[in-house]
Amino acid sequence: MIATLHNDRLLRALLRQPVDVTPVWLMRQAGRYLPEYRAARARAGSFMTLCQTPELACEVTLQPLARFPLDAAILFSDILTIPDAMGLGLSFSEGDGPRFARPLRSAAEIARLGVPDPEVELRYVIDAVRLIRRELAGRIPLIGFAGSPWTLATYMVEGGSSKDYVRIKGLLYNQPDTLHRLLDTTARATIAYLNAQVAAGAQALMVFDTWGGILAPSAYREFSLAYMARIVADLTRAAEDRPVPVILFTKGGGLWLEHIAATGCDAVGVDWTVNLGEARRRVGGQVALQGNLDPAVLYAAPDRIRQQVARVLADFGLGPGHVFNLGHGIQPGVEPDAVRTLVEAVHELSAPCHASTVP
Amino acid sequence: MIATLHNDRLLRALLRQPVDVTPVWLMRQAGRYLPEYRAARARAGSFMTLCQTPELACEVTLQPLARFPLDAAILFSDILTIPDAMGLGLSFSEGDGPRFARPLRSAAEIARLGVPDPEVELRYVIDAVRLIRRELAGRIPLIGFAGSPWTLATYMVEGGSSKDYVRIKGLLYNQPDTLHRLLDTTARATIAYLNAQVAAGAQALMVFDTWGGILAPSAYREFSLAYMARIVADLTRAAEDRPVPVILFTKGGGLWLEHIAATGCDAVGVDWTVNLGEARRRVGGQVALQGNLDPAVLYAAPDRIRQQVARVLADFGLGPGHVFNLGHGIQPGVEPDAVRTLVEAVHELSAPCHASTVP
Repeated sequence: MIATLHNDRLLRALLRQPVDVTPVWLMRQAGRYLPEYRAARARAGSFMTLCQTPELACEVTLQPLARFPLDAAILFSDILTIPDAMGLGLSFSEGDGPRFARPLRSAAEIARLGVPDPEVELRYVIDAVRLIRRELAGRIPLIGFAGSPWTLATYMVEGGSSKDYVRIKGLLYNQPDTLHRLLDTTARATIAYLNAQVAAGAQALMVFDTWGGILAPSAYREFSLAYMARIVADLTRAAEDRPVPVILFTKGGGLWLEHIAATGCDAVGVDWTVNLGEARRRVGGQVALQGNLDPAVLYAAPDRIRQQVARVLADFGLGPGHVFNLGHGIQPGVEPDAVRTLVEAVHELSAPCHASTVP
Repeated sequence: MIATLHNDRLLRALLRQPVDVTPVWLMRQAGRYLPEYRAARARAGSFMTLCQTPELACEVTLQPLARFPLDAAILFSDILTIPDAMGLGLSFSEGDGPRFARPLRSAAEIARLGVPDPEVELRYVIDAVRLIRRELAGRIPLIGFAGSPWTLATYMVEGGSSKDYVRIKGLLYNQPDTLHRLLDTTARATIAYLNAQVAAGAQALMVFDTWGGILAPSAYREFSLAYMARIVADLTRAAEDRPVPVILFTKGGGLWLEHIAATGCDAVGVDWTVNLGEARRRVGGQVALQGNLDPAVLYAAPDRIRQQVARVLADFGLGPGHVFNLGHGIQPGVEPDAVRTLVEAVHELSAPCHASTVP
């Protein structure tokens, strides 16, 4: 299947190729801030059903695209599908977040974990990718994703969200070999999962390292970054005669951008605590950058949103290699109109940044 | 009152003067991990009573010193005493953290806030400082402290702990002038409060910027750092014929160490996400550094704790200018014996770092 892609700004920007305007998509662009999402969620009955029913996952993926001129779709799913497929029993409670019925409590349990076959245990995700690609009909590219092995391990060992990370850090400091075994299994599962997403039609990939930022620098490199680097090395990096760019995003990883860029990924996601101009000076010669508006700006008045969008664009400066995004996901209380203001502002205000390099 | 100070390692290290071994104290060294603290808290009935009764605050301050050879005492109190004295009505609920009965909800309420007289509305804190100094009898120095204006404003506007900081960030992006007014009042109150602590006997000061790390870099400089710089400029910097060193600590501020060091403070606290050697290369010529062991290391076995202590000491390297601490407060579930292992390891393992520079 070689399909025409009508809007390839995202893929071009991720490869640091010239574009007409800066592409924009938003983490959690399909989510609770949209009334149509809340309706679909209510119909599905649970978040898990939404994820596990390809037609619903597809519907929800497309919802923000019907409202806003976004430059990419991102698969609607969850980073914890892999541990669920490994048998940990994932559920979500309103407010409390994810929870595993069978969190990992011993080295023996870790040793017994298998690598799920994405076309079997995670078939519902891969089917959703196929369906979304068909429905997108080449309008914009589809981003596939997974959680980082460290982030998955954190949830698998803690059993859910954590405040102090006592269990996973206990494992890290007391039984590093056991943790490495868990990370190795999780990394292999993630490689198979992401490659299956590419085979099914994902045109770019992103790895979310939500919890890498809780680590000391040497622990980050050993327990999080090393496994993301292995994933980058083992991914299918081209499909349908195009490169499939890979984005790595460690929330709170602003101090380690050089190390992240050195993995061989195509782009690095940055949260809003980093100045994008400084990030570009540090790693812009190697990778594209994705980010980094403070998600709380979406609670501000339209002229303030435009002003902050302009600041982020100015921070990055002239030329290609920037994908506009928030520094973290859209918060549930945001008004959809604020998202429209943001997306339109990015396209409108970024044109001058690309005037001399338009393809 | 010119008192002899038997152990002045902390003050010397904060001023980058030679010491025999690296001084060590720990954020929340007086706290819930100690059974004698939990007993005192139970007797007091509430956390606020503990803070507001000088004899109890003094007792709790001294508890860890009876167990471990720490090189400093830190006043037992809370960063939210100032907003409480401004009339916001502070209380603490188990698990939920601090809560204000009357959070700030309008520009008019912000305009009406007054600057408390520390010897009147905050007399209980200043009396505690006097009492602790007397009880310490010159054994080790006493650190006084306050929260940063930005951190206080965050609590005052949110009404307590927050997940998404919607209210304070709404104020920041939509009504920056109103926020500046609040920060100005809070900074003036903090200056008066810290200077009263020095007059009562505090021998070093620390400003805790717990929430500076949630800001974008330019917002951090405008709304947090600028007010800490004003505090540094207006503090009493000497008493009893000795300098009173000032430590600034922004949790999550590792990207901004150069800016923090440029305020004129004596020392910068760093959390565990920063490599201390890199931090020293960046700002060690201007300031001392305080930190930065991952607090979760205290859940590890004794040999692992010693190994991680050795790593932090090696990261900093040879010579003076380092105060050993955690990167954040001691967690309540830690065993007191783990703290003993840490403190003893710092003294024992750091001696070679100072061999050529012993005073």
